[in-house]
Order: sequence, then structure tokens, then C-alpha cells
Amino acid sequence: MPSKSEHFNIVGKPVIRGDAALKAAGLAEYSADHRLPDLLAAKVLRSPHPHARIVSVDTSRARAVEGVAAVITAADFPETRTGRWLLDRTVLARHRVRHVGEAVAAVAAVDEETAGEALRLIDVEYQPLPGVFDPVEAMEPDSVRVHEEAARYFPPERNCRGNILHSQRITVGDVEAAFQKADLIYEASYATPIQHAGFTQPHQCVAGADPSGKLTLWTSTKDPFGIRRQLSQILGYPMSSVRIVAGMCGGDFGGKGSTTIEGICAALALKAGKPVKLTLDWHEELGSTFVRTRAMAQLKAGVKKDGTLLALKGRIIHDCGAYMDAVASNLSGDLANLQGPYRWAAVDVSALMVYTNNPPTGHVRGVRYPQACFAIESHIDSIARKVGMDPVEIRLRNIMRDGDRVCTGGVLRNVSAGQVLEATAAFIKRQKRPVEPNTGWGIAMAQYNIHPLPGGLQTTSAGVRINDDGTVQLLTGSTEQGSGIVTVLQQIVAEELGIPVDSVTVAPPDTDVSPWERGTGASETTYRVGPTVQMAARDARDQLLSLAARKLDCEPEKLVLAEGRILVRDAPGRSVPMKDAAREAISSSGGPILGTGLSQRKERFRRIEADKGIVDGPSYGAAIVKVAVDRETGKVTVLQCHSVWDAGFAINPANVEGQIEGGVACGLGYALTEEMVVKNGRTLNNNIVDYHVPASTDIPAIESKIIEVPSNWGPYGAKGLGEVTNAPVAPAVANAVFDAAGVRLTELPLTQERVFFGLETRGSRNSNHE
Amino acid sequence: MPSKSEHFNIVGKPVIRGDAALKAAGLAEYSADHRLPDLLAAKVLRSPHPHARIVSVDTSRARAVEGVAAVITAADFPETRTGRWLLDRTVLARHRVRHVGEAVAAVAAVDEETAGEALRLIDVEYQPLPGVFDPVEAMEPDSVRVHEEAARYFPPERNCRGNILHSQRITVGDVEAAFQKADLIYEASYATPIQHAGFTQPHQCVAGADPSGKLTLWTSTKDPFGIRRQLSQILGYPMSSVRIVAGMCGGDFGGKGSTTIEGICAALALKAGKPVKLTLDWHEELGSTFVRTRAMAQLKAGVKKDGTLLALKGRIIHDCGAYMDAVASNLSGDLANLQGPYRWAAVDVSALMVYTNNPPTGHVRGVRYPQACFAIESHIDSIARKVGMDPVEIRLRNIMRDGDRVCTGGVLRNVSAGQVLEATAAFIKRQKRPVEPNTGWGIAMAQYNIHPLPGGLQTTSAGVRINDDGTVQLLTGSTEQGSGIVTVLQQIVAEELGIPVDSVTVAPPDTDVSPWERGTGASETTYRVGPTVQMAARDARDQLLSLAARKLDCEPEKLVLAEGRILVRDAPGRSVPMKDAAREAISSSGGPILGTGLSQRKERFRRIEADKGIVDGPSYGAAIVKVAVDRETGKVTVLQCHSVWDAGFAINPANVEGQIEGGVACGLGYALTEEMVVKNGRTLNNNIVDYHVPASTDIPAIESKIIEVPSNWGPYGAKGLGEVTNAPVAPAVANAVFDAAGVRLTELPLTQERVFFGLETRGSRNSNHE
Repeated sequence: MPSKSEHFNIVGKPVIRGDAALKAAGLAEYSADHRLPDLLAAKVLRSPHPHARIVSVDTSRARAVEGVAAVITAADFPETRTGRWLLDRTVLARHRVRHVGEAVAAVAAVDEETAGEALRLIDVEYQPLPGVFDPVEAMEPDSVRVHEEAARYFPPERNCRGNILHSQRITVGDVEAAFQKADLIYEASYATPIQHAGFTQPHQCVAGADPSGKLTLWTSTKDPFGIRRQLSQILGYPMSSVRIVAGMCGGDFGGKGSTTIEGICAALALKAGKPVKLTLDWHEELGSTFVRTRAMAQLKAGVKKDGTLLALKGRIIHDCGAYMDAVASNLSGDLANLQGPYRWAAVDVSALMVYTNNPPTGHVRGVRYPQACFAIESHIDSIARKVGMDPVEIRLRNIMRDGDRVCTGGVLRNVSAGQVLEATAAFIKRQKRPVEPNTGWGIAMAQYNIHPLPGGLQTTSAGVRINDDGTVQLLTGSTEQGSGIVTVLQQIVAEELGIPVDSVTVAPPDTDVSPWERGTGASETTYRVGPTVQMAARDARDQLLSLAARKLDCEPEKLVLAEGRILVRDAPGRSVPMKDAAREAISSSGGPILGTGLSQRKERFRRIEADKGIVDGPSYGAAIVKVAVDRETGKVTVLQCHSVWDAGFAINPANVEGQIEGGVACGLGYALTEEMVVKNGRTLNNNIVDYHVPASTDIPAIESKIIEVPSNWGPYGAKGLGEVTNAPVAPAVANAVFDAAGVRLTELPLTQERVFFGLETRGSRNSNHE
Repeated sequence: MPSKSEHFNIVGKPVIRGDAALKAAGLAEYSADHRLPDLLAAKVLRSPHPHARIVSVDTSRARAVEGVAAVITAADFPETRTGRWLLDRTVLARHRVRHVGEAVAAVAAVDEETAGEALRLIDVEYQPLPGVFDPVEAMEPDSVRVHEEAARYFPPERNCRGNILHSQRITVGDVEAAFQKADLIYEASYATPIQHAGFTQPHQCVAGADPSGKLTLWTSTKDPFGIRRQLSQILGYPMSSVRIVAGMCGGDFGGKGSTTIEGICAALALKAGKPVKLTLDWHEELGSTFVRTRAMAQLKAGVKKDGTLLALKGRIIHDCGAYMDAVASNLSGDLANLQGPYRWAAVDVSALMVYTNNPPTGHVRGVRYPQACFAIESHIDSIARKVGMDPVEIRLRNIMRDGDRVCTGGVLRNVSAGQVLEATAAFIKRQKRPVEPNTGWGIAMAQYNIHPLPGGLQTTSAGVRINDDGTVQLLTGSTEQGSGIVTVLQQIVAEELGIPVDSVTVAPPDTDVSPWERGTGASETTYRVGPTVQMAARDARDQLLSLAARKLDCEPEKLVLAEGRILVRDAPGRSVPMKDAAREAISSSGGPILGTGLSQRKERFRRIEADKGIVDGPSYGAAIVKVAVDRETGKVTVLQCHSVWDAGFAINPANVEGQIEGGVACGLGYALTEEMVVKNGRTLNNNIVDYHVPASTDIPAIESKIIEVPSNWGPYGAKGLGEVTNAPVAPAVANAVFDAAGVRLTELPLTQERVFFGLETRGSRNSNHE
């Protein structure tokens, strides 16, 4: 499919990100680089127990240490719970700790050493309580209760009981009847591990208050307005007295939308009357922040001999740990992903979120999609083998097409799953066959953004202001969380105004002045914010052309913008520099041109309403992986990785490739090495040696293929892409291991040990197929 | 006249400014309090000559000093001229110095001492040139030329020649014929001195650049966007790479809208690669920044016996010094003020701006109004005495009324000059008569904002965003330059939304993100920005009420906002907290309510066009002063001061009183003590002992009287007030001195020496009247 980028000058072309050189040269200034005079250093005291009552906290010895400016405990905060969406925790533990590493007290002092010394002098008396560490056990009626009040966290109709925080079930069609018609029924369980978001900059922030009490926090976050809301809750401060400046971010991958340390840092700064900097060390980062839920999925599928999928019964149980930071208002993502991008005659799927005394959990790239994706994509692969079909073939037979309805509701439009599979098949066809001994190929698919409008088009606004010299300020609250999204927004403005990308400046979001935004994430900024930015740029362009039309004595419709000039179409001699028109705006009306974009404008809202229930910009992708399995040691080596994704329209193909490659790296970690090992609530490997995030040397050559099936709502047809490019990688690796060694591994990561024992158990270390 | 404030809850009531407590407690953080690590200190080398050629500048010895980070000269800047409106100067002198104190080079070093040491090691070879110090002499064709290229600073039609930078003349009616009909012709000359703006915080700023080269400047300015424009010119930087954050300002009074030190500070920071702080000492502040022009006015008036004003011929010559920072595009203010707020059968008025080698000049409170005001208000007083009329009486007979046309164009509407005079008469009537010996009363009037629409309604925009908790961010680019204007804007928002003033937050303007603004000044922010803020607040309110109407199941028209609640009118039981509706907005549409106000919106612009040529919000005031004159020493003591001003509608009466009182203090300085004594281009008293700005102990009891004659365009009828509350004070003092001692002094300030010699010359130290 030819790219439509040839019609454009700037969008559709690879553009180097503005922050690339700074980051590569080590010159980038991250949030914690925000230096202030008299900056204090902070340290946090954490619980050694997975579950205990706090009998007393005595900070008197700590406060007496010279150089200590403030010591805080739960008593320094109002008695309110906080959280990103679900309010189930306090900043410092109050009366009870529920997981190892839970923050209990904190110190701000002249330097880290002094803060550390004071920390050791805080006397906390704990009364240890029995804990619960297995989510299935936690579901039993007489289990230890992690939260006494959990049932009150959600409305009663959610039927939350005991440690079951949240459960949801959807049935479509008559599942039992569908199973009756099946030629083959296949059932299996799948387990996925706890994964950390894997960013390179740990959580860190700087907080300071001015003499009037106005608090400013410089932090690396993707959601400054969300952090403001949470801080306001935590401190009992009006929102107007809290200001968040979202500094440069050294990776988010889902993990930086919530207050983890911000409440502590802010409270210390307020109490000390001086600015405070708090940085987590890797021990804390890996042992106490919000990680990906460990999950167990059970799938039972009924299929016909010809590979037609009939019935699916599925259940997934997430171990939420002690707190669930980022539970969305429903679990439809889990349920839709248990179904996969496939048609079934009937489905019966359920998802449960259960509290335990394990580490707290939250958003990590793809949220709960990779867990379900591993299950269904492994399951489909097994079924293909069982009915003797090619894995691409069976998927093509059942793949969703335009007009299909997802089990969670929403009618699909602009579905590219078929094209993704065709590109996958074409790639595999080009590979050398038969494969070498002990090597194998595996594929898996993923889907994302399959929620219907208008959910996918929530409010946002943007401004495009043309300076006197023709340079442009793009006003947006979108953060650059590391994905390159700001460059995409700059490209949209530059395209619409016919100027170079580097003439478009974007200030780091500041909650006091930037347009409100719900935070960069969910692969939705291009799709949801992009149109508003485009609207603002076009508004500015129209104003500019009206002005220039008067100067050039022609109709505005006859004018085009290119290379910083406004030209009369088909009359190359007649033109005016854009900056002259920009200056003219200021001298004639006293102010610069300001174009505005507001997603909820009436005419636009009417169009959105008309599309209600439609899934307009669903995103599909596939991973194709070649592995070698060492049958003596169980070691799996990924030899090659190919990844196909639909971008709708790739505004910045280099960015899209970056997102795909980053997703593959994340997916390979999930597949092979990343597992937070927790025993009785204690994380055993919370250090960056034993918790192994793939380094560049661990990553094979990645070949990305972008396809473009445009959406109706995205700018130039763009869709969201990036969040779940990791998801299909782990099942593809597992499927490739099966292809190479005939062993079906249903528990991630595929460590050498697991593969080795899998081969042993199977007793078929020389056979190639099941 | 009863105040209309009873219809309102928040506007029309005195509200304490948000920064009052911080400033009073010494806790306010001004721009130069912006502390950054590794901040360098800067010092500026200045010319000792009023006029000289720069033969060479050798910085090698200075650069060799340990601790010196950067030394700059004119060679470090592109060869472009800069200035606020008129581009007649460079940041550091290039080839030539034109006044004593002109900046020639600058140093940034680890501390001020090191910078000072380095400064002394910069070798500048000057070749002194003859200078010109008298503006009339400077007008002669063979005079020394201050600027070779001055004629190119303005378009040719302005007919600038030699050192005459700018001249303008207006005639209305047949002046010679009108003089023919006069019973009395009176002619006199008036001289006014150089005055400094008199703020308490000298110019200071901090500049720093990030590794990408983006420059940020924290400075106390009333016009951050103007500073950005100038810095962009000065450095040859795109505007999008320059960011100005307008920190708290310790007084502006007109003096902080231009780059004085910002270009130097920014260039040093860029060259040093570290942040730099530059603060002027008072010697520099008084000896090298832009001050009020010294002016000479000649007036010739023809009047009838009954006091009817017939003919006016007037001319004012301003000594611009070496550079004229803030010349506006025309001199209509000067010309209209020579006429005063009075009807004349015919006028012939002209104004001239002339370069000399005296200190450079620019905006100081009231710009060039106080100079003309002193002339015409002294002149009218003399005429009254000569025709034997009361000074109030003669003014009342000739005062402008609705429908009158100013000589510069523009038809007056909402004219309050008559009411101001009536309030003046009423006040005088209440005073004890006859006055004690050697004491006397004087009055004078002033007018302002008599320019016709749409000039007075230049583009501005505002946003009102309602946070989840019902607190509000007001988005505006207006700076708090010291007048309390931000409180007025907060009151407007609070009034419209029915919330407390302190729930409305305004961030300090930041050119990267704040709405564009042309800078606080000219008494126009309330009148020009206020309506846009009101529009934004009403837009937000309407959105809020629509939402609440659904919740309360009634028409939005039935709802009112008060005390943080939305209530159904006439149904007190039915209400919803405003914050619930605010939160509802976020949950229903995914984003907070954002109300926007844009002054150039089409429907509004049509209304503005319809009012073109109308002077909608003219502001009038009067000062009434009682003095005692010591006939032995010539010492003048101001015993009492009363000031009447029309606020249209006083949104914050406490603020209006503050503006009146501040204006009186400034006017008393102009009247009695403030004079920058310059001899052959050298300022002799540039220190805060010899240049005496009145302290609180110098100020008598001030009684302010606010009257309210509403404008059509200002919010709630408000007009601009503040800028020229100083203007009538000096002529009122001079008129009172005449009343007390019978001596007419036509040169300001009325120093003891001048009064003494005036009494001597008159030889009538015992007479009470002329």
C-alpha cells in the first residue's frame, strides 16, 4: 500500500525529534535536574513487613539529628485516601502497612547521608499480621482481608467482596450451545509475571513552596493535571495552589501518571519551608512502585475441524497486590483481549482484580493487555497445531473485519487486522524454508484502541500562536513522556502552516497555564489531541490567509502556504513572507494571530455523537519472531524479530518505528527475562542486575513494517500506535519456542530453567512438534 | 452619586490584594530573587563621555581575571538597532557613545567584586566629540548631530530633520481670527524637569539558557511579550527560542516595559554558558536608564472678559536625550493636553521631540502628559486671576462635555470633567475661609485615555478554567506591575462565577504559554483586558449553568451562582455545589470547563467598528492642594491634598484610592523635589539622597474622592485610572503657591531656592496676590 505522505511536505516524513540530540549528548535536563538553592535531600522509610499493624512511630531521635529539616509521618496528612483513579491508599501508611516497601515516614535533610542517618533513628513498632499472597486464596471468603473497606471503593453494583476489588463478566451468544457444535475443545492456563515499566529515569521530583504557600512541583510525569488533582487531595490544598511543571521525562511506559513520591516530597517541602528533592533508588523503584499485575488466565475454546472458532470461555485473575493504582472504570480491555481480534460464535469472558499483600500494581505499557494477549495468542497457536493449520491461516479465517462487533460493545470500522495478517504472511513467505534445526518461527497478534467513540475523543484544547517573526508557539498540555509525541504535534502545525518543524515551539506543560490535558498515554495523543492541534493550526492559517489576501489583493482560497511564504496559487511571482503577515496582524489588530482548537466544539461534537458506538481507530499489529532453542540448556535466543503495525497514517514514520522497536524490546523482556520474583510478599530481585531489562545487546535486528489503513477521526487518518507494540512479542516467542522445540510453555518469562524443565517433562528433547 | 456597587457581591467592593501581605512582610520574591545554582553576577562598563567616538575596546586583561566567565562588547551582538517602539539604539555602544552612562561593555563573573575588578581592566579608548545639550540649540541646522541616521527612524512624511526626531502640529479653526476677538491675550513659558520613574526595585533580571540554546529570562517587567520581541531583535534569535517570565515587580511607573539590561544579561548568559544575574545600582539606575523628558512649553491664549476661552497657540519641545525609548507613533497626547479638557474656538498646537547628548528618555507615569498639564493648568489659573474669576468657575465655563471633539480627533462620550469640577467646588466650599496668612489653595485638572476606539480596545485574550474542586485559573498575559490590576481581574472572575476572590489564581505571565498581551500600562488594563476576562468568565459560567441545569432539571436561565453554589432562582432549596458541576464537566466530557474571551471576536468587532471615532472611556480628575509658603525661606509645605477622579465604576475602590494616593505622591515629587540635574550631559545628583523621591513622611494627608460616570465598553462601566493621577498635582501646587504668596512659578520643581528668588524678584514678599 503506497503511503499517502507524498501529498504532504512534513507529515508522513521521518523527522528527528527535538530532544534527540540533547538526550544523546547527555545534555537533557530532567525534572530532578531542576536545581534550586538550599535544596534538601529526602529519604523514605519503608515497611519491612508485608502486613502489620503500626503500633507507634517515634521520630524524636530523627528530628534531633543536625541537618534534618523535616520528618513526616501519616499524621502530617489529612485523613483522605488517594490514587490515580481508585482511592485506596494513603501517601504514608496510616495504622497499617499492607506490603513490603510501603512508605511509613520520610525525612528531608541537608544531604542524603544525613537523611539516611535520621531514617535509621525513626522507631516504628510493628505488630506483624498474617498476609495473603496468592490471589486465588485471597478470593476465599475467610481469607485475610487486605483492605477492610475495599467494598466501598466501588459502587455496590460492582459486587466487590472481600479482597475482590473488581470483577466483570460478559457473555455474548449461547456459549454452551456453541461448544456442542465444536469438533475440538481445548483448554489451558497461562501465567504472566510482575513486570516493572522499565524506564531509565527512576521516579524523582523537586518540590518547593513560595511564601504565600503556593506549591510548585517539578516532576517527570505524563499527566501533570492528574498529579495536581492527586496532590490537592493528598495535601488538602485547593487545586489553584498547586502547580505542576512536567519536566523532561526519562521514560514513562505507563509508570509516571500517578503520585508515587510527589506527595511525600511536597509535604516535606511545606514542612521544611525549603525546596526538597526526592529520587528513588533502584531498590525502592523496583520494590515499592506500581508494577504490572501478575495474572492467571484460563481459556477453553471450541473450534471446528476447519479452524472456525466457535466458543470461548475465558477468565483472567489479576493479582493487584496491596494497592491498585490505575484500575479503570471497567475491565473491558481485559475482556476484549481474551477474545482477541477474532470472531467467535459465542463468548463468556470474565476478569477479576484481587488484593493481596504483594507489591502494589498499576499502569505499565499496555496495562492489562499483554497478559490476556499472551493467553489467547498462545491458545490460538495451539489450536492451529491441533487442527493442522498454519498459524496465519487460522487467524485469517477468523479475523475481525469492518462491521464486526467487539464482545464489549462497539462496532469496528477501519479494521486492518486482515492487512496486518497478509503482511505477516508475506514476510514469512520470504523467509528461508525449511528452518534450521532447533529454530522456529512464531507469530502473534495484538489489538488496541477498540473502545467506541466518543470515549476515544475526550476533551482537549490547543492553541497556535504566530509570533511576530513567523515562529510559532504551540500551546498544548500534552507531555513528551518519551514517545516523541510532541514532534508529531509540531509536524502537524508545521504542515498546516508551511513552516519548518523547528519553528514550532512547545513549552513543557505547566498546570497553571497550559491547556488542560488528561495526560499522554493509551496511544491516544496523536489520535485525540492531534485533531485539536490541527484545528488550531488551520484556524491560525485561515486568519493569516485572510490578512495576506488583502495584501495580495486576491481571494484567500487562492493562497497556499509553503516554505515560510504565502503564495498565490498558479502565480509564483505573487507572494508575501509569512512573517510579514504575522507582523501585520499585530500592527493591524494589536495582537498576534491565535488559532484555537477545542475538541468539544459544537459542530464537532455533533459529528462525534453521530459516530457514537463506532470503533473508529482500532489498531492492529503482529509480531513474527524467529528463535533458536538450545536443547541441552533450555536457552532461548531470539534471532530475528519482525513487527507489523497499522498506523492509520504514519505522521512520523521514524517515530512509529521507534515505538515498534521499543515495544519489541519491552516484549522480549517480558518474554524472556523480566520477572519480579516475590515470595511471601518480599521481592527477591529488586535490583537492576537480577531484574534484567533487555539492554541493546540483548535485542536482535528488528524489522518494522508500517501499514496504513486510515481512521476517520485521526489527523490525516492517523491512529494511535505505541502502547501495545510490546503485547504480541511474548506469545510470538512462546509460539516460536514451540515451533523450534515442540514444547508449549504457558508461563512467562521463558527462562532457561523453565524451557529446560519443559523439555525434560515433555521427554522429547529431540522431537520438533507436539 | 451613589455607587452602583450594591448590585454586586465582589466588584465595587474594596478587596485586599493577594500580594499585599507578602510585600508588607518582606516575603515577596521579586524577579532578581529567582535563584539558580552557579548564578554569575554581572557588571556594566559605562561611558564617562556625553559624546565620543570609541576608538578601541580591549577586553583582554578583563578576560584574564580569575572568576570571569564572559566579557561582552558591541561585537557580540548582531548589527541591528533596538528599542521599545523606535529602534534608535544598540544594547552596547557601537563605534560611538551618545550620553554619559551609555553601556559599552559588560562582565559576568563568579561574584560582583570580581566582575567589578574585571570592569576596571577593560581598556576603552575614546575620542571625545562636541556635544549638544540644549534641545533648542539642537534644532539649529548646523548643530552637532546626535544620530546621523535619525531621519530614517520614521517614515519620510514625518519630516524629521537633523536632531528633530519627531514633530507634529494640529490646527483647528482660524486661530488668528479667534485671537482678534479676544479681550485678553496671555502668553507664558513653562519648564519641567527630568524625572525618574521612582520605583523601589531597580532594574534587575536573571537570564539562563538550556543546553538546546533556549533562553529564559526572569525579569520584572510590565510587558514580557515586548521584552521578548526586543530580545529577539537584539540577539538575532527566533522569538520561539526566547522565553520571558515576568516575576514580581517592585514598581514600574512606566519604566519597565523596555529592555534596559535584559539584552546584556542574556548575552552574558549565552556567552558564559551559565545563568547570570544583573542588578543596576542606584547610581546606574538614576544615571543611565530611560527617564521622563525635560520639556519646555509656550502657550499663548486669547480669552473673553467673561472667561470664555477663544484661541490657543501652543508648542512643547521635549528633550529626548540621546535615545528616545518609547516614542509612540504620534504625539496626539501632547497636543490634546496642551488644549486641556477645555473648549477653544480655535487651536494651533505643536509638539517636537529633539535629540541631545543628555540622558536617554522614555516612559514614566503619564508619559508626556504631566509636562503639558503643568503648562495649561498653570496658564488657565493665571487667566482666571487676570479676568477675576474663580479657578473652578472659569474651568466650568469652558469644560468639555459629551459630543465635544478633541483637537486630535475623536468625539467624547461619557465625559465626567464637569462632575469632577463640581466635586472639586463642593470640596473647596467645605474648607475654612478666609485661609490663614501665607497659605493658599490651588486646583488643577487632568484628562487621559482620550483616544478614540478602536485604538483603546486592542487585541487581547483570556481564559477561565474551572478546576475539579471549583477553584479557577485565570489565564491572562497581563502583568501585576504593582498597581493591583491582577486583583481587579480576579474580582471580575469571582463576581461572574459567584466565588471568593482568592479562589481565582493567576500565574505570572510566561511568554511561552500565557495569552499574548501588549503589556500593562496606559491605565487601560481594566478597560481593555477586563472585558475579555469578563467574557471568558461568562462563557465558563454559561457552560457551568448548562451542566447544572441538567442536574437540577430546570432551564439554565433560572440559575444563579453565589457563594460557591449554583441555585435555582426563587427556589432556595434546590442547589448544587459549583465544584460538583465542575467535576461533572470533567467526568462527562473528559475535560474541565474552559471559558474563553477574545477581544476581536467578530460580533464584538462589529460593535467596535460601529463606535469607531468615539472616545468612550475618557478619564478626568482634579487635584486640590493647600500649601503654606514660608516667605523668609521660600519653603513650600503641602498641608492638604484632595484628589477627585472618575473611575467609571470602581471595581476595587481600595485600589483606586491607592492609585490616586500613589499619583499624588509622584506628583508632589515632581512639584517640589524631583529633578535630575544634568549639566553638559552629566547627571550631578544620580543618587537617592540628592535625587529626592518623596518618602511617606513627606506626604500630607490625602483625601480621595471617586466619582463614577460609566463607560460603555469597560467592565461594569469601568474606565482606566491610575496613570495620570500624578499629572494635576504639580500645577495645583504651583497654583496654590501663587494663591499663598502671589508668585507665579513656571519652572518645576518648586524648590525652596526658586520660590525664594521668585519672591525676591517680585519684590512683594508681603503681598498676597499678583
